[in-house]
Amino acid sequence: MEEINLSEIKSPADIRKMSLPELTQLAAEMRSTLLEKLSAHGGHIGPNLGMIEAVIALHYVFDTPEDKIIFDVSHQTYPHKMLTGRMQAFTDPAHYDDVTGYTNPSESEYDLYSLGHTSSAVALAAGLAKARDFKGGKENVIAVIGDGSLSGGVAFEGLDYGATLGSNFIVVVNDNQMSIAENHGGIYADLRLLRNTNGTAEPNLFRAMGYAYRYVNYGNDLKNLIEMFRSVKDINYPVVVHINTMKGMGLPVAEANKEEFHYNGPFDLKTGAPLHEESPKDEPEDYSDLFAKGMLRRMKENDKVVTITAATPGVLGFDKARRKEAGKQFIDVGIAEQSAVDVASGLAKGGLRPVVGFVSSFLQRAYDQFSQDIALNKQAATFVVFYGSMFGMNDETHLGFFDIALLSNIPNLLYLAPTCKEEFEAMLDWSVKQDKLAVVVRTPGSVAVSNSEVKLLNDYSTPEYDVVRKGENVALIGAGLMFGIMTQAADLLAQKGVNVTLINPRNLSTLDAKTLDDLKAYSLVITAEDGIIDGGYGQKVASYLGEAPVKVLNLGLPKKFLNRYSYSELQKACGLTPEQIGQTVLSTIDK
Amino acid sequence: MEEINLSEIKSPADIRKMSLPELTQLAAEMRSTLLEKLSAHGGHIGPNLGMIEAVIALHYVFDTPEDKIIFDVSHQTYPHKMLTGRMQAFTDPAHYDDVTGYTNPSESEYDLYSLGHTSSAVALAAGLAKARDFKGGKENVIAVIGDGSLSGGVAFEGLDYGATLGSNFIVVVNDNQMSIAENHGGIYADLRLLRNTNGTAEPNLFRAMGYAYRYVNYGNDLKNLIEMFRSVKDINYPVVVHINTMKGMGLPVAEANKEEFHYNGPFDLKTGAPLHEESPKDEPEDYSDLFAKGMLRRMKENDKVVTITAATPGVLGFDKARRKEAGKQFIDVGIAEQSAVDVASGLAKGGLRPVVGFVSSFLQRAYDQFSQDIALNKQAATFVVFYGSMFGMNDETHLGFFDIALLSNIPNLLYLAPTCKEEFEAMLDWSVKQDKLAVVVRTPGSVAVSNSEVKLLNDYSTPEYDVVRKGENVALIGAGLMFGIMTQAADLLAQKGVNVTLINPRNLSTLDAKTLDDLKAYSLVITAEDGIIDGGYGQKVASYLGEAPVKVLNLGLPKKFLNRYSYSELQKACGLTPEQIGQTVLSTIDK
Repeated sequence: MEEINLSEIKSPADIRKMSLPELTQLAAEMRSTLLEKLSAHGGHIGPNLGMIEAVIALHYVFDTPEDKIIFDVSHQTYPHKMLTGRMQAFTDPAHYDDVTGYTNPSESEYDLYSLGHTSSAVALAAGLAKARDFKGGKENVIAVIGDGSLSGGVAFEGLDYGATLGSNFIVVVNDNQMSIAENHGGIYADLRLLRNTNGTAEPNLFRAMGYAYRYVNYGNDLKNLIEMFRSVKDINYPVVVHINTMKGMGLPVAEANKEEFHYNGPFDLKTGAPLHEESPKDEPEDYSDLFAKGMLRRMKENDKVVTITAATPGVLGFDKARRKEAGKQFIDVGIAEQSAVDVASGLAKGGLRPVVGFVSSFLQRAYDQFSQDIALNKQAATFVVFYGSMFGMNDETHLGFFDIALLSNIPNLLYLAPTCKEEFEAMLDWSVKQDKLAVVVRTPGSVAVSNSEVKLLNDYSTPEYDVVRKGENVALIGAGLMFGIMTQAADLLAQKGVNVTLINPRNLSTLDAKTLDDLKAYSLVITAEDGIIDGGYGQKVASYLGEAPVKVLNLGLPKKFLNRYSYSELQKACGLTPEQIGQTVLSTIDK
Repeated sequence: MEEINLSEIKSPADIRKMSLPELTQLAAEMRSTLLEKLSAHGGHIGPNLGMIEAVIALHYVFDTPEDKIIFDVSHQTYPHKMLTGRMQAFTDPAHYDDVTGYTNPSESEYDLYSLGHTSSAVALAAGLAKARDFKGGKENVIAVIGDGSLSGGVAFEGLDYGATLGSNFIVVVNDNQMSIAENHGGIYADLRLLRNTNGTAEPNLFRAMGYAYRYVNYGNDLKNLIEMFRSVKDINYPVVVHINTMKGMGLPVAEANKEEFHYNGPFDLKTGAPLHEESPKDEPEDYSDLFAKGMLRRMKENDKVVTITAATPGVLGFDKARRKEAGKQFIDVGIAEQSAVDVASGLAKGGLRPVVGFVSSFLQRAYDQFSQDIALNKQAATFVVFYGSMFGMNDETHLGFFDIALLSNIPNLLYLAPTCKEEFEAMLDWSVKQDKLAVVVRTPGSVAVSNSEVKLLNDYSTPEYDVVRKGENVALIGAGLMFGIMTQAADLLAQKGVNVTLINPRNLSTLDAKTLDDLKAYSLVITAEDGIIDGGYGQKVASYLGEAPVKVLNLGLPKKFLNRYSYSELQKACGLTPEQIGQTVLSTIDK
């Protein structure tokens, strides 16, 4: 067969003319093209390699964009982007960064949502299907969701509601037998049973929820997929199509190491080894690694300490070897942040010392559980926030700016912002030893910074700001990662003869009134935090000092969903470089 | 048989000596005692009447408090309280208010959590069971959850995790075939199928999730319940015990009108008619009623408008008759706040005009969906917050103080605080007509207030404060319900010759910089909001004005979980009476 010129595929219409052998050839070429980009560029490897055939079959059978597909999490949509007018971003290295890693309505009418959190697609699609029914439309509405994402509560809520539609509603369950790491939860035994019986067994979770059910055992076989999708096209009731796919398909090292190749940086296509390999000693120490090492130590010292993740063990530094080392003291509840918090609450109630690690953006799922089941009920659990920083993830779906405003305003919840690795360790050591308070500890960025001079406390339960330098007239309060920047600003000012007071507040949830009272006679207080200003720490200080004559300036991020921004440009735009802060001080006290 | 002296029942040990006839007699006496209290006092009627036998059987069979029971929502725990040392609060009218309406660890060691939000008990109990396993304990761990609560995503997450425990874990599903109103969702067809087949049918949702399964068809029959609970006591794997109970049992009017008698005020035991009956014209108009009337009108005017609830239609003023009138334009997604927001997002994406009504405290479940699926994706849906007020619900599990801090700090989400019913209607009218913005509208308290002089806008998309009175030197900014109080304070001050500027900010999510700039030369600005100060509206104002010489004072509520507080005492403690505000102004400008 002739080679297919991928560049000529401008829309799904171009593949609907193809024969099955041509489609097979297309899948092969897409796979090799994807491998080339992924090995050079990095990205979500396994999820996309496993979905090439299913995505081709979906666009081949359904009349997109009239028929609507919502991809859950949407990190598996590289093949979808290739077929919907964005091929160049995969074939041409100069254009690799033209597309985001998720569906994005501003890129294409084939993308319905900007999605990056899991488990929401079914409910969103159910709403879309309901709107279609209202308007008398006839288009198919399809949600595509992975087996891992099924463990999120909102997926279940969406399935529960979708089952009542009584009209066309197609849920494709892409079962690759993996979450990011292995799956955890009772439903996975049922999925396995269904796979092992070619979809014929009972009990069947999907039938139990009110869906018709179809099964495709060879979910990377175009012919099987096309036949199945044709059989459900224009169906007039809710149906689940369960397809059994292979994560990482076509890259043996990814097929064999599904967790490592879920998401990865550039790698050698033959060996899978990371490119630009550094010797271990050159790699900067990060808080994930530090956390895991520290928790392994704490768990050994005290068999009541347990570490909990909601399906992101790697973020917590717990690779397979460390999970094995931790044994039963490491718990993965699946992609289920609400349950992670509630299970931690139950563990604490039962006398254990649970420590839960979350990606900042994902903990948003569990606000109510933090509030009701932890804080109101005063359960002594510890929560560690990763990537809670403007210097963390910069996709608009994964921003780490919001957790201070979200969590620090919950009563009874102590929010600690360490400024360096020594303080991070000390706060965690204290937190797992006490049994009175619910504590949040935020890693100060990703790359660990050391400060051997940091003043540690034996008890962080009451707010006690560290006045690191005592100056006059001007105070700089730098929370978490911003403390280092404020220190640099203070140094710059000192060089100009302006000696300012420099403060590490440690605690962002309750003010240290005594220290702040001393600042009432100052002329300027500047706060800086690594999060949005609105609802954050600095505004508490501004409010507290509102009746005093001292001027207060709050630095931080604007309340905006930013997308793939430049770290340094954002820092500058927010006036958060040491030079800018120094300049702000000088121009203000000059007035 | 002799009568049982309920007052002699001090703990479950006292009922474990009883014969079955005695237990039956006990149930009858508890029911008549409960009916007496409920008819005089009000409360959760149907849920408790339906659970008397199950609660007796649980405490009879299991060795509480060593065996642990977590009741979901816990508004069905009046019988539990009667058996666990708190009988007097049910037999003696003078002590009716000695107990809260929910489990409460400060009342009794038999109460493990203070719970009032649904669907969390399974995950909490799973954590507790896991802690037991760690410690080598042998006690039974039991979660009791209603069929309605099963639709909440966290219930599913908890079931999913609990199934993996591999040890004693007993989930009692109390199926009374009702949520607060009727159930909605695909799982309810399966529950019906199970009831209709005496628990024998497949598919079986619980088996599909990895549980052994038992069914009790007569869930108000003590003998059946005791036998079943005995059969699962000390079981060494996870099991669901599905019991079929009758909501409202023993009160014919409640059996026949399950929704009306889910929760009710005092009523006539014979007729079910409300006591202290008022003529309709004497009843104060409330925002639930206003909302429903307004939405019925809007839905008639535009068939693209739909109203959505997550299982609390009554809060939205939609009783059965109004739901019928609204027809398919009224959607109930079940107790599933996440799905309510996502379905609204899908509906908006599909071109409809969804309006979702939430109890302030319950919307906490959906923060991530507000952020990601509504705000980030700019879907024009409208959300109405009920009971978001210090004058609303005052149980610690149902506080309405937190939603301003929670929602007003989300980018792209317009948070509007009307001050009276005219403004409430105008904001809603505008919101359902526009298709650009996601909008939150907060009802200003429960009882509707009228202000015929309020200045209405045709467009609320950009912040535009209403400077209602122009004074000098001092500005009072009153958000939502607090505007009325600030107006009274301004009147008091005017009587004393102090003419202040009085502002209705309307918009709590974005500041009106122009109006605030005019205040920089003032000597005092006071903000007042009906929510916690931390993370709220006033702190934004304090931050904005932080560099100006003007003093800023933020009034509102402390960041605390308060329980069954007195409205007037709290108002006074917060300095929020008109007199106090006037006094604050006078003493500040005097300085």
